[in-house]
Amino acid sequence: MSPSPSLTVDLARYAAESHYDGLPSEVRHEAARAFLNWIAAAIGGCQEDAVQIAARFIKARGGRPRATVIGTGSCSDVASAAFVNCIASSVLAYDDAHLPTVAHPSGPAASALFALAQLKETSGTEFINALALGIEIQCRVANMLVLPPSPIDTSFYVNGFSGPIGVAAAAGRLLGLSEQQLAWAIGIAASQAAGFRAVHGTMTSHFRPGYASRVGLEAALLAELGFDCIENSLEAPGGFISVYAPGSDPGLALDGLGSRHEMLENRYKPYPCGIVIHPVIDACQELKAQIPDRADISHVRLFVNPLVLALTGKRSPRTALESHVSVFHWAAVALLQDAPGLAATRDACLADATVGALRAQIEAEAVSDIGKGEARVQVTLRDGTQLETHVLHARGSRARPMSDNELNAKFNDLTADRLRPGSGLLLREACWRVSEMPEIGRKIGVLLP
Amino acid sequence: MSPSPSLTVDLARYAAESHYDGLPSEVRHEAARAFLNWIAAAIGGCQEDAVQIAARFIKARGGRPRATVIGTGSCSDVASAAFVNCIASSVLAYDDAHLPTVAHPSGPAASALFALAQLKETSGTEFINALALGIEIQCRVANMLVLPPSPIDTSFYVNGFSGPIGVAAAAGRLLGLSEQQLAWAIGIAASQAAGFRAVHGTMTSHFRPGYASRVGLEAALLAELGFDCIENSLEAPGGFISVYAPGSDPGLALDGLGSRHEMLENRYKPYPCGIVIHPVIDACQELKAQIPDRADISHVRLFVNPLVLALTGKRSPRTALESHVSVFHWAAVALLQDAPGLAATRDACLADATVGALRAQIEAEAVSDIGKGEARVQVTLRDGTQLETHVLHARGSRARPMSDNELNAKFNDLTADRLRPGSGLLLREACWRVSEMPEIGRKIGVLLP
Repeated sequence: MSPSPSLTVDLARYAAESHYDGLPSEVRHEAARAFLNWIAAAIGGCQEDAVQIAARFIKARGGRPRATVIGTGSCSDVASAAFVNCIASSVLAYDDAHLPTVAHPSGPAASALFALAQLKETSGTEFINALALGIEIQCRVANMLVLPPSPIDTSFYVNGFSGPIGVAAAAGRLLGLSEQQLAWAIGIAASQAAGFRAVHGTMTSHFRPGYASRVGLEAALLAELGFDCIENSLEAPGGFISVYAPGSDPGLALDGLGSRHEMLENRYKPYPCGIVIHPVIDACQELKAQIPDRADISHVRLFVNPLVLALTGKRSPRTALESHVSVFHWAAVALLQDAPGLAATRDACLADATVGALRAQIEAEAVSDIGKGEARVQVTLRDGTQLETHVLHARGSRARPMSDNELNAKFNDLTADRLRPGSGLLLREACWRVSEMPEIGRKIGVLLP
Repeated sequence: MSPSPSLTVDLARYAAESHYDGLPSEVRHEAARAFLNWIAAAIGGCQEDAVQIAARFIKARGGRPRATVIGTGSCSDVASAAFVNCIASSVLAYDDAHLPTVAHPSGPAASALFALAQLKETSGTEFINALALGIEIQCRVANMLVLPPSPIDTSFYVNGFSGPIGVAAAAGRLLGLSEQQLAWAIGIAASQAAGFRAVHGTMTSHFRPGYASRVGLEAALLAELGFDCIENSLEAPGGFISVYAPGSDPGLALDGLGSRHEMLENRYKPYPCGIVIHPVIDACQELKAQIPDRADISHVRLFVNPLVLALTGKRSPRTALESHVSVFHWAAVALLQDAPGLAATRDACLADATVGALRAQIEAEAVSDIGKGEARVQVTLRDGTQLETHVLHARGSRARPMSDNELNAKFNDLTADRLRPGSGLLLREACWRVSEMPEIGRKIGVLLP
């Protein structure tokens, strides 16, 4: 374990000193991609039940109308807007994922930072820097919490721990906090880090990114007002690491900080479900092309990383939220349909008898030497023929990243029904060019539903 | 380990079925005592820096003015009022404590429930039932989390885990939630449970009870709107217990539920500091009476439970918040002054040269067979005389509980400077008679500063 006596302050200093001019162009571009993907996911998700309830909840509370609550046509206070918009961007499971840790960093960061940018005049370069920073710190904290020698297992919902900390640092940067205030903000946020994976498949599983966004933002706002904390909350004896991930290596959060950009490992989802399902979908799509008639299928075997069953082992999903964590459902759909998308999460598909029958013919086996981004699928036909394929890198992975054009198409799919005619293209182009804008909050806010 | 396949639902059912008529009179009276003690602590603390900053923070956000923010003369939305009032009731470390777990259950529960009672017409009996329930469930969940066979240690801030759950159940009861909604509320709250003790001595250590109150209340409000969760969040594989306290015994939360009232183990603090310091204060007060001149003291040895140094081992406190966790400071003050109280936490006392000199003459030794409510203190005088005393039960403990009259005196001390003339007595009497009131929110709200 690296000693790292100053993890919290090291991260606070990195945040305080971060600047658009210091970012490589690929990091700047990746932050714009993350922003585009986030806004598309949030617009696409804004009418889901969990989001509608969350919006009613914050409306009942009230609050100064400063930031857009996407999909309501109205505004709320910044923390509430961040909360609801992040739930919206998460609820379709169509957001992003940092594969090494399965964290979803864009939603909490972008939701909080965009709300702040509506409260306080913010340039596009400030925004892109803060967004890159928020994603970077979340990915790094997640690495520390999840990767060996950390003792934590998949029950621990890493996003609920890395999220508040990264958001606090990024929101604090946008607010212009001092290094000490940033360390406090990280500590206040870390004191609210929380989450376990058993609630996956319910609305509460999307509550938690929303809550990570809100509490991270609030931590920065409190620190700005002088609400203090210790300055070593992460590494202190009796602090964050010692309570939640004792023995984990703070060096993993600091390794190459400022030169290596972990945020480049973050990926956008081509399919609206848990990212570890994606290589299975790719494999099933390949096999589908070789199967003339689905009635020929006798049975299907999936060989997957153990994480796949731990995270997405739901056998018979009953709701959209449960479909996100059912590798069986997606394998069935991907053997039956071309380019499976949001329709696969809807009641009609979940209740479809053909899909249900095929789901029941699928077995999955956890294989420890199959990677998280990898899958092997074997289909046995009724005549005994065996078809098999092995996907080494899923669509959307670092080896096969979503192109800008693919992200544009995803944006169009997600937003077509929700935006006024013409707004879609304007918004999409605004996202790509955000770093050129002298002020982004109003400019983008007026285009949102 | 008891199997308890249904801990969450068992607690939800207990909450749903709880009723004033079913409570023994001693439980009703204890809830009234808890309410009086809470309101006194909150009024006494409302002008502290941490509270003022929290009040500015929620004012900047705005919100429908439904519930009193104590000390501001104004109202905010219920969750924000609960948040600030709970910080106020915690910030002087003069609240309450459940000694077996060192949880502080009244603040989160009373802050949330009183705010709700201002939102929604609530009778005194409904309120007292909900408050007893909120304290009961917090104490029980804390027992489960802290007592053997639980693996957790003192770094884990138990109040941040038991608080949200107990508040969610109690607020849900006041809202009239169904058993299923109560199970959801418990799950939403458990998903936000958080906290570690390293931040003790800073404002953030008081943020966390405030946050426990807020998130517990919000969990109930969300569940009321239909925001769902699993119904076994606490005991599910990959759920609350398995992530935070694997191997702990759910039976400890359920043992005697409905017949034995754990909330009767909760105590009110006679001194404004960590409860484990209290027996040391009592012992030092006894010895003080035997020491004619403080200049005679050569050195002092404290023999205390190991928890005392783990929680309150700060050697030289610089702020009121740090004084709460300094057994050395309180031992010094208690050897120098009669009836030490809030003045001991103020800058003048912290910086006092005599107090500082005596602090430096004190050593403390952790002794594992000394109980948490017990202390032995040895004073050696310059002429070699040794004085020693052994306190088996601190003032305020179950064996020597604060009487109603002592609570009245504490109320007077804490509120004298903050209430309009005459209001103090009215408010104090209203607290004692709360169960007789057909409606409590307005009746008590108008008496608050």
